[in-house]
Amino acid sequence: MGEPIAFRCVSCGREYDPWSVDYACPRCGPLSGTLEVLYDYRALARRLVPGSFAETRRNSLWRYEELLPVGVEYAVPLRPGWTPLYESPTLAAELGLGALWIKDDTLNPTASCKDRGTAVAVAAARKLGRDACACASTGNAATSLAGFCAAAGIPCYIFVPKNAPRPKVAQLLAFGAMVFVVDGTYDEAYELAIQAADRFGWYNRSDGWNPMVVEGNKTGALEVWEQIGEASLDFALVAAGDGSVVSGVCKGFQELVKVGLADRVPRVYGVQAAGAAAIAHAFERHEQGRPILPAEEGADTVADSIRVGKPRDVVKAVRYVAATGGGFVTVTDDEIVSGAQELARRAGVFAEPAGAAPWAGLVRLLREGAVPEGAKVVLFITGSGLKDPEGALRGLPEPTLIPPRIEAVAEAVGG
Amino acid sequence: MGEPIAFRCVSCGREYDPWSVDYACPRCGPLSGTLEVLYDYRALARRLVPGSFAETRRNSLWRYEELLPVGVEYAVPLRPGWTPLYESPTLAAELGLGALWIKDDTLNPTASCKDRGTAVAVAAARKLGRDACACASTGNAATSLAGFCAAAGIPCYIFVPKNAPRPKVAQLLAFGAMVFVVDGTYDEAYELAIQAADRFGWYNRSDGWNPMVVEGNKTGALEVWEQIGEASLDFALVAAGDGSVVSGVCKGFQELVKVGLADRVPRVYGVQAAGAAAIAHAFERHEQGRPILPAEEGADTVADSIRVGKPRDVVKAVRYVAATGGGFVTVTDDEIVSGAQELARRAGVFAEPAGAAPWAGLVRLLREGAVPEGAKVVLFITGSGLKDPEGALRGLPEPTLIPPRIEAVAEAVGG
Repeated sequence: MGEPIAFRCVSCGREYDPWSVDYACPRCGPLSGTLEVLYDYRALARRLVPGSFAETRRNSLWRYEELLPVGVEYAVPLRPGWTPLYESPTLAAELGLGALWIKDDTLNPTASCKDRGTAVAVAAARKLGRDACACASTGNAATSLAGFCAAAGIPCYIFVPKNAPRPKVAQLLAFGAMVFVVDGTYDEAYELAIQAADRFGWYNRSDGWNPMVVEGNKTGALEVWEQIGEASLDFALVAAGDGSVVSGVCKGFQELVKVGLADRVPRVYGVQAAGAAAIAHAFERHEQGRPILPAEEGADTVADSIRVGKPRDVVKAVRYVAATGGGFVTVTDDEIVSGAQELARRAGVFAEPAGAAPWAGLVRLLREGAVPEGAKVVLFITGSGLKDPEGALRGLPEPTLIPPRIEAVAEAVGG
Repeated sequence: MGEPIAFRCVSCGREYDPWSVDYACPRCGPLSGTLEVLYDYRALARRLVPGSFAETRRNSLWRYEELLPVGVEYAVPLRPGWTPLYESPTLAAELGLGALWIKDDTLNPTASCKDRGTAVAVAAARKLGRDACACASTGNAATSLAGFCAAAGIPCYIFVPKNAPRPKVAQLLAFGAMVFVVDGTYDEAYELAIQAADRFGWYNRSDGWNPMVVEGNKTGALEVWEQIGEASLDFALVAAGDGSVVSGVCKGFQELVKVGLADRVPRVYGVQAAGAAAIAHAFERHEQGRPILPAEEGADTVADSIRVGKPRDVVKAVRYVAATGGGFVTVTDDEIVSGAQELARRAGVFAEPAGAAPWAGLVRLLREGAVPEGAKVVLFITGSGLKDPEGALRGLPEPTLIPPRIEAVAEAVGG
């Protein structure tokens, strides 16, 4: 296990003894004061070689235990991570890319990348002896926490906005979580989860609040590095809502350099919906030398998983992405939906709208020239289309109803 | 690759040169004449050792290429198989079992075990140079074929009954398949698919028709054997609709004995809905020395994936299961639904109703004494709850809608 040496405030830089604080820097508070988990990278560099992770023979994110704050002995019996990476030479050629990889994080236990952060957060809860978990979420983090708590046998309290898609609510109910559908926005649900967790002693897994989440999320990048092998990677694209997933992707690539396993980090791009682009706007301000905060805006998009008006990991997301030389790109709902359809039709990967946003972002970055011809690109696909089938289908024609007769088929196929 | 030495009719025993026939024994026809793929087991026994599959370093069913009729060079770039196996000591203890494992086949690329058969069938289509695929299905085999054809870049023609759950239809449309919703039963859709595939030259993946399907399905058993390691296994339970999945599970365990990697096969039980129990009834007839066919009955159950009145792989299913010393068990819809809820709540695995039927079957077999105390049991969970959220939720209370105020939470949790 990679014993953390400090929890550091991402804004003021103050360092705390590991596990001495649960969530945000007491001085800077939430939003500004999200904590980063630091390790002894020099010691890790001496110990780790490229084959170290494969040696564990673990087909889950626990193969990266050396770079995680909690040991596998606290892991819940589900299999988060080690999801497939698909290379698509055909699509790469069509787009003029040197290589295109699709990281299919829909194949996590509860069908989204949120299982990565949850796996580490629930393991931390067990290590810390907390006997219940809670979180606010647009949907996927909640279903993920509910699933892992079910497998762990501990109670789970969930706060979701009332517009969460039905399949996500179904998962929550099936997993036996106590579900509060908050008559308000995600942001109101988020504040309520903090208050309630505080009052009732629940361990709060919410994005941007619990530093364990980014530790789990970073394993997506570690996997891509290991799965790509010798080939270099120029760009990584991932959807951004609260900013915890894109922060994790950046941190993963950066830590590989810190421990001497990689020479450089790819440029990481966060993809946001045009109608819910608070981090993208904060990034612009940061590029102009202005403060990242306040980042609070309206949030309107078909992509419910990134429908976030007040992104909770905005400071990390902006700073980490900037450090990779990447940026943020916004895409319209139409681009998101047709991206999801293209991804399913061309690659056989069925994503929810937010999950497919990186495809739309890539198309736009290519058009704008930010991603040059010949570049090698990975898209992180973060949530299954089964999480929101209607969202992914918008505009597609309904199937043909036919009588059970061959003539009807012949007519339809023009045969 | 495990070069097949013959395709043999399961009823008359006549052997055909591999690949000389696509589907059923020309003499016996469909239902009776389903084909079995045979290998040179003696040669394989000389070559294979327990570590042979791990050596391939493939995290998919293609690690078993030596026991498959098609080589990995024809595989589509998706990751079928090598799904997780979870051990649950808590549930085992509660049920009085020696061990309980849950094989989570919901984590296949299109979220059901059908991806196993599809992976091998589509690879066969590529090997044979067929340029389009088709199948009839209650839903999961169809979505699976649509996904793999999308990744392969070949057209796909799908025949589903009009009562298929919406999320499955959504997957089909997203993957760009040409979908025929047949105004009739699954059985009518099935016949129509055979006719249409024949007329238009499509390679037909339908269960019980294409012998490649059972070859893919058997890898579920191979994985369980490899994942369990040294521990012995007494019983394996899996839902049965057409009978191709349970046939595959039996064949996998049996081939492990044939190639000298295992000493014995576990007793395999097929689990059917009480309202769609044609194979279970055929099995009873067979036990009484009467002919297996005709197996044609009504089909009425909440578990759409096993809502099959005329099971197409009934002969294989009955004979293979009998050879393991197992049997069939039927469960009511209420038992299926509460099984799905129990599985999600206790193990964190969210299954569609059919997927969770083995849990219900286990409870019944324990009650009847067919599974004795101390037995070691694996349940194959075949399809994700996201495929049919409403089916899995029947009878569960809806979540609480609350205003965004801490008092509302306190009231609900009694704090």
